[in-house]
Amino acid sequence: MDSYNTEDVIYALATAWAKSAIAVVRASGTGCIERLCPAVRSRHDIRKLASNTAHYCNLVDPADGKPVDDIVLTVYRDGHGYTGEEAFEISCHGGLQVVRAVLGTLSALGFRQALPGEFTLRAFLHGKMDLTRAEAVDELVKAQGRTGQIMALNRLNGALFRQIDKIKDIVLDMMSIVEVQLDYSDDEIGENLDFPRERLDEAVRGLEKLRDSYSTGRLFSQGARIVLAGPSNAGKSSLFNYFLKEERAIVSPQKGTTRDFIEAMCTVRGIPVRLYDTAGFRELSESEIEEEGIRRSRSLMDSADIVIYLADSSDFTDPDPKVLSDPRCIAVLNKTDLVDRELEGFIKLSVTTGQGFDVLCDAIYGRLTSDLEVSDDSALVIENTRQKENLERASSALRRASDALDAGLPLDIVSMEIQEALEALGELTGEVTTDDILERIFGSFCVGK
Amino acid sequence: MDSYNTEDVIYALATAWAKSAIAVVRASGTGCIERLCPAVRSRHDIRKLASNTAHYCNLVDPADGKPVDDIVLTVYRDGHGYTGEEAFEISCHGGLQVVRAVLGTLSALGFRQALPGEFTLRAFLHGKMDLTRAEAVDELVKAQGRTGQIMALNRLNGALFRQIDKIKDIVLDMMSIVEVQLDYSDDEIGENLDFPRERLDEAVRGLEKLRDSYSTGRLFSQGARIVLAGPSNAGKSSLFNYFLKEERAIVSPQKGTTRDFIEAMCTVRGIPVRLYDTAGFRELSESEIEEEGIRRSRSLMDSADIVIYLADSSDFTDPDPKVLSDPRCIAVLNKTDLVDRELEGFIKLSVTTGQGFDVLCDAIYGRLTSDLEVSDDSALVIENTRQKENLERASSALRRASDALDAGLPLDIVSMEIQEALEALGELTGEVTTDDILERIFGSFCVGK
Repeated sequence: MDSYNTEDVIYALATAWAKSAIAVVRASGTGCIERLCPAVRSRHDIRKLASNTAHYCNLVDPADGKPVDDIVLTVYRDGHGYTGEEAFEISCHGGLQVVRAVLGTLSALGFRQALPGEFTLRAFLHGKMDLTRAEAVDELVKAQGRTGQIMALNRLNGALFRQIDKIKDIVLDMMSIVEVQLDYSDDEIGENLDFPRERLDEAVRGLEKLRDSYSTGRLFSQGARIVLAGPSNAGKSSLFNYFLKEERAIVSPQKGTTRDFIEAMCTVRGIPVRLYDTAGFRELSESEIEEEGIRRSRSLMDSADIVIYLADSSDFTDPDPKVLSDPRCIAVLNKTDLVDRELEGFIKLSVTTGQGFDVLCDAIYGRLTSDLEVSDDSALVIENTRQKENLERASSALRRASDALDAGLPLDIVSMEIQEALEALGELTGEVTTDDILERIFGSFCVGK
Repeated sequence: MDSYNTEDVIYALATAWAKSAIAVVRASGTGCIERLCPAVRSRHDIRKLASNTAHYCNLVDPADGKPVDDIVLTVYRDGHGYTGEEAFEISCHGGLQVVRAVLGTLSALGFRQALPGEFTLRAFLHGKMDLTRAEAVDELVKAQGRTGQIMALNRLNGALFRQIDKIKDIVLDMMSIVEVQLDYSDDEIGENLDFPRERLDEAVRGLEKLRDSYSTGRLFSQGARIVLAGPSNAGKSSLFNYFLKEERAIVSPQKGTTRDFIEAMCTVRGIPVRLYDTAGFRELSESEIEEEGIRRSRSLMDSADIVIYLADSSDFTDPDPKVLSDPRCIAVLNKTDLVDRELEGFIKLSVTTGQGFDVLCDAIYGRLTSDLEVSDDSALVIENTRQKENLERASSALRRASDALDAGLPLDIVSMEIQEALEALGELTGEVTTDDILERIFGSFCVGK
């Protein structure tokens, strides 16, 4: 964590590096407003501005006084802004040259370019948020669908922290009971230990429920891969486009770099879906298909969570049995507006009229969530591997404590396990941290956050 | 201008549509803060917030109360913000899903998506800036080099407006003198008309100087095209990369879509330069070069402002005389660190040591500015065709007025010409506008500005 020196005044472009109407550069650190002074021409003395107020100013090059931009400067006093320390934001014109000049001005004034996640790290270090909330910031920025977004917001607003805090209180209670017994009794533990076993079980269940929510969280944050397969006349490309239109595509379709498939992001019932249309295989020549196409097609299929096998109702030839026997396969009979047929195990669809599309989406959702407990989007769900590991560590320790009690083992051992659980929970929320942990967490953030 | 309805409350994403730490959505229009209320959960009543203050709030979906994002809301009261009307900015998390949800919330509340330049149009309509300043906003965002940026900032800060206003005062003075003469005298004008000819000349000179600055402005805003040519072993790609390193590339190099050349943006002595390395031609097969390569090479050369012909000092074969006779050609002898030779008309360069690069840049700058009057970057310079046309119209009218005076033509004619000049100046600054003019100006802005 040496590089994340908390004494420095730091700055970063917080908006995307692309031409736009405005861009925002943020800075944070004790004395940052004073340090900015030589570059600001303003009706006000910016050192005396009230917290959370926005002012029109001229930014100039401190070296030669030449104009850099007309900006809106928003100042945050100690404790008021995102980081919890003295900070400011510069809202400047969004041209690349302007942004570069603004960043260059701060650099010339001795500000240091912020590292990934460094603003959020400072917010954490100043007690503005615990680690679960800090991680939710990044998870929210990366959210790909409305459900995942709401789940991340839930955590950002402290729902996870509060739940863990509740469980930790229980564990602390148990710890103190054990400690008292250890202090005042030399005896080994017998059946007459006054220990609230039902509360221990409650804590374990709470932790395991959170841990198990990880699969749900992952599905709604990382999403699923769906491949459209089937004969070339079945309407795969039409279905692909229909998905994008109906399910609000996040990213517009892009030809695969090797032109072997088309890929796009959309959401299905709130689940982010990366959709692959293998129609592009047709563009390859016969020999290319032989060599390369089949290999790619197979690799795409192999990594898919769902393969939608699309058949043509008006021109039906028996599908490849290997595809249909695949448990990930959803078989669909398209063009049922032209030829209305039933086919065992096939969902009837008409991309032209949209009939059957809802049933298909239900089937996709059902298949993807069949092994999960999904209540609704307000449920407390985690998506973070670090959190899952700490939850696992805490619940396992408590289970071992429980086993030790059952086996009548010495209280020292019980105490040790409870201590281990407390440490895992402390790491989870960030009460206990090491530079290593922090660097791993914040290093994956984007710069400016 | 029907679509730019000024009664609507409008909104737009003001930052770039790409994942980033934060994004900013701005909104403007009478009643916009009241309209936002149903979607905000805050410790404060946002209707009562002071202008120019920033507040942490929760944004929720007004339909179901589900969270949309934790935001910082900055409010601007009538007359205080960019547009000069009631307005607010939402600083939200910069994930695409979040941004879409925030935009969707405003849309659901009845805000209308802003058209290009609509915020600046409102600023203009509310008297926050004249047209030359409004245009400078867009020119600033599009600035590609520091010099062009400073020139645009000059205009943004009203330097052009003030200069034109000064000239207009002179023209108005002349107009009133002519009007008085027209009112009180029935005589034709003789030599004894008390007319300040030297001031008329001063006005014409002022307008023509501004008009002539257009070429300079265009060079520093639109930049120049430079093609690197010469034999394949001369080090074109090395020079290309050296330019990008030394002259702060704005856009990193990209292979041409057809792989026939590499292209990048950099600046040379403050002039934006689009640099083309034709080294890629080598990748084409012989027959392809025959057909397509030569055609593309020629078309690239034809549109270039400068062709840098790079020869190899250690392996010199006579260059194509056609290239060297081209007045746009700058001949350079590379690798002079290996073989130190002189060659008539060639600049000595070593890309390896950097020696000679400054001379080359001077030569480029000299060539590009040879026909221009370039004093320094604080000079008042225009880059806008509309402004140039209005300046031309005004100065021509004044010249005709001058000629009419010389020829002893009736004062009516002089008056008419002065009137024409005033109209052109009025259009230039936007005192006189039509929907047509405004639509043409603001329609080319980016959305959110």
